[in-house]
Amino acid sequence: MTLPMVEPQAGMPDEVTIYEVGPRDGLQNESLAVPTEVKAEFINRLIAAGLQTVEITSMVPQKWVPQLGDAEDLLAQLGLTGLGRQRPVLVPNERGLDRALEQGVSAIAVFGSATETFARKNLNRSVDESLDMFGPVVRRALDGGAWVRGYVSMCFGDPWEGPVPIDQVVDVCSRLMDLGCDQLSLGDTIGVATPGHVLRLLDRLDDAGIGPDQVGVHFHDTYGQALSNTYAALGRGVRVFDASTGGLGGCPYAKSATGNLATEDLVWMLDGLGIRHGVDLSALVETSTWMAQQLGKPSASRVVKALAGS
Amino acid sequence: MTLPMVEPQAGMPDEVTIYEVGPRDGLQNESLAVPTEVKAEFINRLIAAGLQTVEITSMVPQKWVPQLGDAEDLLAQLGLTGLGRQRPVLVPNERGLDRALEQGVSAIAVFGSATETFARKNLNRSVDESLDMFGPVVRRALDGGAWVRGYVSMCFGDPWEGPVPIDQVVDVCSRLMDLGCDQLSLGDTIGVATPGHVLRLLDRLDDAGIGPDQVGVHFHDTYGQALSNTYAALGRGVRVFDASTGGLGGCPYAKSATGNLATEDLVWMLDGLGIRHGVDLSALVETSTWMAQQLGKPSASRVVKALAGS
Repeated sequence: MTLPMVEPQAGMPDEVTIYEVGPRDGLQNESLAVPTEVKAEFINRLIAAGLQTVEITSMVPQKWVPQLGDAEDLLAQLGLTGLGRQRPVLVPNERGLDRALEQGVSAIAVFGSATETFARKNLNRSVDESLDMFGPVVRRALDGGAWVRGYVSMCFGDPWEGPVPIDQVVDVCSRLMDLGCDQLSLGDTIGVATPGHVLRLLDRLDDAGIGPDQVGVHFHDTYGQALSNTYAALGRGVRVFDASTGGLGGCPYAKSATGNLATEDLVWMLDGLGIRHGVDLSALVETSTWMAQQLGKPSASRVVKALAGS
Repeated sequence: MTLPMVEPQAGMPDEVTIYEVGPRDGLQNESLAVPTEVKAEFINRLIAAGLQTVEITSMVPQKWVPQLGDAEDLLAQLGLTGLGRQRPVLVPNERGLDRALEQGVSAIAVFGSATETFARKNLNRSVDESLDMFGPVVRRALDGGAWVRGYVSMCFGDPWEGPVPIDQVVDVCSRLMDLGCDQLSLGDTIGVATPGHVLRLLDRLDDAGIGPDQVGVHFHDTYGQALSNTYAALGRGVRVFDASTGGLGGCPYAKSATGNLATEDLVWMLDGLGIRHGVDLSALVETSTWMAQQLGKPSASRVVKALAGS
């Protein structure tokens, strides 16, 4: 298999964490519901390929997201593999937290929004109301010894509100940190961001006491910008990068557009820069190709397409 | 139409040149031959959209590249539009130069290779022999008052030779500059480069007396790395960026993989960074969508896909 040539760049880190969101964010946005045993095999193969952090599923009501309605069954099938600090489960509210804790989950994520419109569309609540709802979720999770991530969606642009003021993003981020989150994930949910915008947000967060070591970045490749934005964030001290194997997920707000940054494309860049991440690209591409067959559609990852055709 | 939000980044230039290669490099690698009048309309629309530099065609023998066998007819149809310093025409040898000069062309490009294998496959000559062949082409073009660009293909990896030593690339670049080229274009013909590699080559060229103001970069998106590499080069002082509207071109060395960086995806990033380039993205996307219809295949540009679906 072709592999990138290694040429490190001064000022870059030795090691980063890839936070794999394919099984949750990816499959949640795929139209085809995937059998539980296929999800379990997918997750086990991702871990075997070297992905250290894999978000497993979401404890949302089945009627909201039928694709992830099998969360308990999936965790049961995964057994100990589905647990631990590096196996977060998304929880929307206290009921979701209860379900997660009953299964032995020890890392959770809550899903906030930087904009009012998306908070209402996604959570049926204002931003204030959603933060009020997350308060006891985060506190109880921390009290139970769990690790907590706070997603902040629509950090750059919003399909209904347009450009999102950076002050507004910083405010939501600060309030999630005040609740006790261990890590934030800054989401460009519609994929419109460019590097200057990313750096400005990181700088403003740093000014507000939230350093680049406390955030991950979550870029969508809808406009082809995800990897450039990732590279910009890497140079500014961010060490956690969300990505989805095979680019699974699509973008629910732009038909026929691509969604999450493909993990393989990120791995190619990191390998070329000589930055450690633990993932074996060959094994990941095999897994991605297998998963694309399960979904009956080609992978959106350019690396996967290139290696499949070479 | 959705447009990127503008957030400039410190240390970036105010203005860059997009060197549009779609009509030549793009169409040369498309399997469908495009009628001359469609090519002329494509070029006229690209120029109307604000692209200042458009490589028009190639004066190669028709039996080598049948897609571009209508070079004289195309230039005749374009009239004055096809001429001038910002309308380069590729010429492979002195015979091609004669044909170009007969048509009134005043900017040419020669197409060199950093590797022996590709020089033999593309030009049926060794690297030394191809530079010997370019010598009189460049000299006669300069003597006639023309502007000359020297392409250097396979600057990073080569499908037959693997990683390409940077010394070897610098040597070919230096020899092309010694011949008198006004500008080089550093090509990642198979799309394998990553940002550290790009920066290292730029640094080594600078050490050899070829500054970032004397080179353009030509990245392929085969492995999804083109825009990150472009962004890295932008931060290191490069001001000329090759791109192909709609990502036209494919990659002849990797089936089903994408080829040239899509001009629209580059424009999105530059617009977001507040860097002037003269192109109206809406007009470009309209042109790209029209051209995709002519070719009967969807655009490879993520921006075009996203805007078509939004």
